[in-house]
Amino acid sequence: MSAKRPVVIDLKFSRAAMDEALKGAFADRDVIDLGLPENAGRDLSDATYALLWKPDPSLFKRATALEVLFSGGAGVDHILALPDLPDRPVVRFVDRSLTDRMSEWVVLNCLYHLRQMTTYQRQQREKLWNELALQPEARDVTVGVMGLGVLGEDAARKLKTMGFTVIGWSRRQKVLEGIETFDEDHLDAFLGKTDILVGLLPLTSETRGLYDSSLFSRLRQGGALSKPVFLNAGRGGSQVEADVIAALQKGVLGAASLDVFEKEPLAADSPLWAMENVVITPHAAAASDIRALFRHVEQQIARYEAGEALEHVVDRWAGY
Amino acid sequence: MSAKRPVVIDLKFSRAAMDEALKGAFADRDVIDLGLPENAGRDLSDATYALLWKPDPSLFKRATALEVLFSGGAGVDHILALPDLPDRPVVRFVDRSLTDRMSEWVVLNCLYHLRQMTTYQRQQREKLWNELALQPEARDVTVGVMGLGVLGEDAARKLKTMGFTVIGWSRRQKVLEGIETFDEDHLDAFLGKTDILVGLLPLTSETRGLYDSSLFSRLRQGGALSKPVFLNAGRGGSQVEADVIAALQKGVLGAASLDVFEKEPLAADSPLWAMENVVITPHAAAASDIRALFRHVEQQIARYEAGEALEHVVDRWAGY
Ligand SMILES: NC(=O)c1ccc[n+]([C@@H]2O[C@H](COP(=O)([O-])OP(=O)(O)OC[C@H]3O[C@@H](n4cnc5c(N)ncnc54)[C@H](OP(=O)(O)O)[C@@H]3O)[C@@H](O)[C@H]2O)c1
Ligand SMILES: NC(=O)c1ccc[n+]([C@@H]2O[C@H](COP(=O)([O-])OP(=O)(O)OC[C@H]3O[C@@H](n4cnc5c(N)ncnc54)[C@H](OP(=O)(O)O)[C@@H]3O)[C@@H](O)[C@H]2O)c1
Repeated sequence: MSAKRPVVIDLKFSRAAMDEALKGAFADRDVIDLGLPENAGRDLSDATYALLWKPDPSLFKRATALEVLFSGGAGVDHILALPDLPDRPVVRFVDRSLTDRMSEWVVLNCLYHLRQMTTYQRQQREKLWNELALQPEARDVTVGVMGLGVLGEDAARKLKTMGFTVIGWSRRQKVLEGIETFDEDHLDAFLGKTDILVGLLPLTSETRGLYDSSLFSRLRQGGALSKPVFLNAGRGGSQVEADVIAALQKGVLGAASLDVFEKEPLAADSPLWAMENVVITPHAAAASDIRALFRHVEQQIARYEAGEALEHVVDRWAGY
Repeated sequence: MSAKRPVVIDLKFSRAAMDEALKGAFADRDVIDLGLPENAGRDLSDATYALLWKPDPSLFKRATALEVLFSGGAGVDHILALPDLPDRPVVRFVDRSLTDRMSEWVVLNCLYHLRQMTTYQRQQREKLWNELALQPEARDVTVGVMGLGVLGEDAARKLKTMGFTVIGWSRRQKVLEGIETFDEDHLDAFLGKTDILVGLLPLTSETRGLYDSSLFSRLRQGGALSKPVFLNAGRGGSQVEADVIAALQKGVLGAASLDVFEKEPLAADSPLWAMENVVITPHAAAASDIRALFRHVEQQIARYEAGEALEHVVDRWAGY
């Protein structure tokens, strides 16, 4: 047994990516990778750390001496909902690359709808050369970002650089330069100004089912894009998918871009796939970079073992 | 006749847009709008100013006393190529809104190809939930901007904010923070580092037919997107369309986004329309805002009549 205390890993990357990234990672430390068949029945009672993405629910029955839990992604809903969760710090993944990639997705999708690419792509299929009459520019459109955490703040800043009018909503009011912000008590004022809604909220008991018919009906109608647009790259559990579909069908929403769904993979019979004004990506807005993830966990373990405070620890009461 | 010297206008906006924008514009000045049938045979010999977008080639035979020519867009190739062009200053259109809109188009299309939206949209049509294995982020991809003028510089800066590695090429070398730049003598060095080529050049005798098989073959192969991508929103005359098509078919280019074409509208039988990895927009990347255009022309006329120097005057020798 190595001198360093063991880490148990239950992640969902491909085998090849794991093998490659584990080379040189966690030097001298016992790594128990539950993705390997030989570890199926292994004794986990000495594991001190766990690095998890949607882990097997039996984990905490087997790994009874865990001191720190690490999430394989920015979200922790997949851990906090587990049975027998020990009362130990849960550290989430915060990473430059992840943040940059999420902002790529958000800016791409806001520009896609601003520049009416659904219509231009249909015209292309029809070989139709036709410049649209109504061509709002970014500053004519207000993007409302729900969730101004690590991801929401970066996306808001980049949307602003691209010219959009940007407003933001979070539990506690934030101060962001050039961006009007609202706290949780002022949701209606925020929604009433929003032309493109960008969901970057964690999934908690408070945010579950938040994006529903009632919320969509409070978004601004008749803005520069005429109908509001809904983007979600936070968690699918925050959206009532039947309401998203109904709002699109009724014209309460004009378009949507969705990276996350109530149930993933999205069922093949979901009407969303075939809706012309909907862009679907398979929970790929900001995949965790496996090497960066291992580095982050190593750094936090080093801090912990040196008696320093862990960073990015989840507030169990708030749920994120 | 009004006290102020007349302006003759030959633009290609819709009648409704012209009527609306002319209200309150050019106060007290005679406006001869050649878009109105009653002005078809009108004597233009007293017109002092001309505001033009692809004007009737007979114009300069009729308007013989012009002192200043204004372009209805940022490009002036449509004026400089005209017969009987008088040796008078040509002022081009430079405008915040036009610049912002061009950068929207450029950033949108760079992100579209970076995030492999062609593939994700095909998967959506097939109702296929599949996260792609290779997911480069913006910093892994080098965008090479050809033309670092008003438009190229703004686009380069915004691409940089979005995380791309950005390099630029112009006739005379520019200094731009965080962006490696090349002058006209170092085209090969520039191309050899470029994964996404963004064309924002004016059409001149030097740039006509510049984007051809030879140029495409000098772009970097095997970068983060595996094959280079070609974007053009400058002028169609700079691209050899048959070569663009061949390069896409042979895999010398992996994808393209084109807003401009050798002949516009693009012919219905062009293979480009139906190529899956090509995005086509109908010369709509950055339409001139008609009101902003009239304001700009009024300001320049005011300067001229006050004896001040005109701004944005074209260098006839350089051709832009
Ligand atoms: N699709 C993907 O590929 C992908 C990738 C990574 C992450 N994500 C999702 O994105 C989420 C956000 O990530 P992050 O790193 O930005 O999280 P974060 O830094 O924890 O920020 C969360 C933000 O949401 C706000 N918030 C939470 N509950 C709220 C409530 N009930 N009412 C109003 N605001 C509330 C927080 O408000 P305060 O500022 O007041 O705390 C904070 O601004 C993650 O939880 C994850 O689910 C998705
Ligand atoms: N698709 C659309 O909707 C749309 C809308 C507006 C404009 N445009 C096109 O965009 C073009 C660029 O506009 P802009 O306002 O940015 O023009 P600009 O300010 O005049 O800039 C032109 C740039 O191109 C460079 N350049 C010109 N000839 C060159 C050559 N032979 N070799 C290398 N570099 C050369 C110039 O180099 P220097 O810096 O050394 O002078 C300059 O950096 C316009 O001419 C127009 O054709 C298209």
